[in-house]
Amino acid sequence: MALIVQKYGGTSVGSVERIQEVAKKIKRFKDAGNDLVITVSAMSGETNRLTSLAKDIHSQPSTREMDVLLTTGEQVTISLLSMALHDLGCDAISYTGSQVKIITDSVHGKARIQSIDDHRIRNSLSENKVVVVAGFQGVDESGNITTLGRGGSDTTAVALAASLRADECQIYTDVDGVYTTDPRIEPNAKKINIMSYEEMLEMASLGSKVLQIRSVEFASKYHVPLRVLSSMIENPEGTLITSEENIMEKAIISGIAHNQDEAKLSLIGVPDKPGIAFQILKPISDANIEVDMIVQSVSAREGLTNFAFTVHRNDYDKALNILENICKKLDAIGVQSDDKVVKVSLVGIGMRSHAGIAAKMFEVLHNENINIEMISTSEIKISVVINEKYLELAVRSLHSAFELENI
Amino acid sequence: MALIVQKYGGTSVGSVERIQEVAKKIKRFKDAGNDLVITVSAMSGETNRLTSLAKDIHSQPSTREMDVLLTTGEQVTISLLSMALHDLGCDAISYTGSQVKIITDSVHGKARIQSIDDHRIRNSLSENKVVVVAGFQGVDESGNITTLGRGGSDTTAVALAASLRADECQIYTDVDGVYTTDPRIEPNAKKINIMSYEEMLEMASLGSKVLQIRSVEFASKYHVPLRVLSSMIENPEGTLITSEENIMEKAIISGIAHNQDEAKLSLIGVPDKPGIAFQILKPISDANIEVDMIVQSVSAREGLTNFAFTVHRNDYDKALNILENICKKLDAIGVQSDDKVVKVSLVGIGMRSHAGIAAKMFEVLHNENINIEMISTSEIKISVVINEKYLELAVRSLHSAFELENI
Repeated sequence: MALIVQKYGGTSVGSVERIQEVAKKIKRFKDAGNDLVITVSAMSGETNRLTSLAKDIHSQPSTREMDVLLTTGEQVTISLLSMALHDLGCDAISYTGSQVKIITDSVHGKARIQSIDDHRIRNSLSENKVVVVAGFQGVDESGNITTLGRGGSDTTAVALAASLRADECQIYTDVDGVYTTDPRIEPNAKKINIMSYEEMLEMASLGSKVLQIRSVEFASKYHVPLRVLSSMIENPEGTLITSEENIMEKAIISGIAHNQDEAKLSLIGVPDKPGIAFQILKPISDANIEVDMIVQSVSAREGLTNFAFTVHRNDYDKALNILENICKKLDAIGVQSDDKVVKVSLVGIGMRSHAGIAAKMFEVLHNENINIEMISTSEIKISVVINEKYLELAVRSLHSAFELENI
Repeated sequence: MALIVQKYGGTSVGSVERIQEVAKKIKRFKDAGNDLVITVSAMSGETNRLTSLAKDIHSQPSTREMDVLLTTGEQVTISLLSMALHDLGCDAISYTGSQVKIITDSVHGKARIQSIDDHRIRNSLSENKVVVVAGFQGVDESGNITTLGRGGSDTTAVALAASLRADECQIYTDVDGVYTTDPRIEPNAKKINIMSYEEMLEMASLGSKVLQIRSVEFASKYHVPLRVLSSMIENPEGTLITSEENIMEKAIISGIAHNQDEAKLSLIGVPDKPGIAFQILKPISDANIEVDMIVQSVSAREGLTNFAFTVHRNDYDKALNILENICKKLDAIGVQSDDKVVKVSLVGIGMRSHAGIAAKMFEVLHNENINIEMISTSEIKISVVINEKYLELAVRSLHSAFELENI
């Protein structure tokens, strides 16, 4: 008998019928002898409905009151799902974040979980009940209702699994797992059966929007086996994300991620003095522009350096304007920019022990006449910035060269 | 400076615009220097929406989960009203029933308030905030969410006023007070400016559906001055309901209440033995039929008695059927019944010290040739059952005879 935490997102519980489907699925797990703790999101559309009511009343609603408002969404779902389980003859009980208690800090709208009191959940489990917990929400030390921010229900699920030392945390979603790359670009993309937290973190931050990155960090920190799987198909296997030591056969490359809509900006020929990076990036970050890749390299002329970074294309004009001012101030040679670039990344824990992955990647791109504009590497990832017209070609040729269709 | 508890019902907060109107009203009270605690219901329509979701899932939803579901309604309203107050530059904070804590027993769906912890409310008041509390809801000792049942928001308001020793509890509704009788029957009906709890209790139970009877009982028990007034008009005075000793000039008659849709059943010629009333009423009550008036009188024949009572017309057929069985069992002479009757009642604390009120009432009805089928009296009320065709005539002639248009 296993203790499993399952999370169902807004689409999976978006209507009475879907809630009933989810209840059937849960009952099958229960009948198979498992202990179950279920976390749910608000029914799809509900959060938008509530947010627009608030916006009609106040252009910048108090974050405390927004949390009071939005948490009603999951509270509705937990009660309806419990009723649907009762209707199947399956004993169940609902808890809000406050009832559990999921204690968070007091940062309304993006609170962080500090502790979970699991005694109520354990009592209900020992009474053979399915426990249904509202995702996304908690309560601070003073009893104020808080929310965990976007994707917070994933975080709730992982935190509950960590606190209860669950055997597995299953995140049901509308895709059936994590793929070696975007199947819309490479139809031969394969579902990954098992991967490490680190790989998932690199994949998530690079645009494979399957799991919230925070929940993966959380799972990694507390060694919670995390499975992403589809709520739409029968007996899905999904993708298991776990500690590296649990993965027997490590694939060299797990997948190819990509970020579209990037823009590249370079400051050329900056006098190379300490504090240059800070002087360039401070005004950019002050303008609330998020910077992705950062590369500093030696310039052709001695005593000078080149500094390049990428931003989201929406921030391109603003960033370019700031960089031109910085260029004058720092007496640099000039600014180069390109707002038609994408980032393509190879991710895999296996590359740590295999030399030559980077060389092979560059060779593949060279053979396709794809010019590399920037390179950045980490232990388990190599990212290149290329012109956006080469995106599909790069992804497909890398996918084939590293034989990802055979993993 | 006064401490005022105000309650706004579902219609008053039924849309964003109405919530904004209520916020303006509250701000005027605040600007006048009052401390304010506001209780609100769910936006009109919301409770029905949630209930029908539940009914789609389970024909008899768990009462615990229904309470989890329904309490989201007021939680939405408290956050939106707080935002609307912020928008007017008025500092405000919302609390759910659990947050306050309003401790109730564990009877889901019709819980009773056991205690209120007022320290959070007092802290917020001392920070000069308007405190907005979700009506209708509480939490039991184990942390389960409960609801107080129909009209529960009135009860919340009165209980808060009692706990905080508020100067007044104001119930805003869609009528502008309690009237001497139903204005749809007697256009000369006058709004009553002040009346006692006892009178209001008699009026409420007799069909003047302005206030939930439980909230009046509560107000009476804790001596909370209770004012019913309209949320639709400017500076309403409404009707103040208070202790008898606070009412200087006691009107002899406060008003005329009526119950329509009654049915009368009589068992004629029952052998007069101890336990007769029980033997007749037990099967009726076992069938979940609510009995209103009960009258037992001597029969023309010695050793026999007549037993009569009224029920709601919906229960007439069922009650008649049961009574015919009882008739055989008790060897009574027969059953008489009439499903076309109404009850008309004169209410007033003044009648205690004035003899002859009953005589005058019967005289008025006799002068109009209205036959009285049943009579029942209490200290401050005289009720008669008459044929329903005389309802308007009876109400109007009594209203005029007791000069209620001049109070």
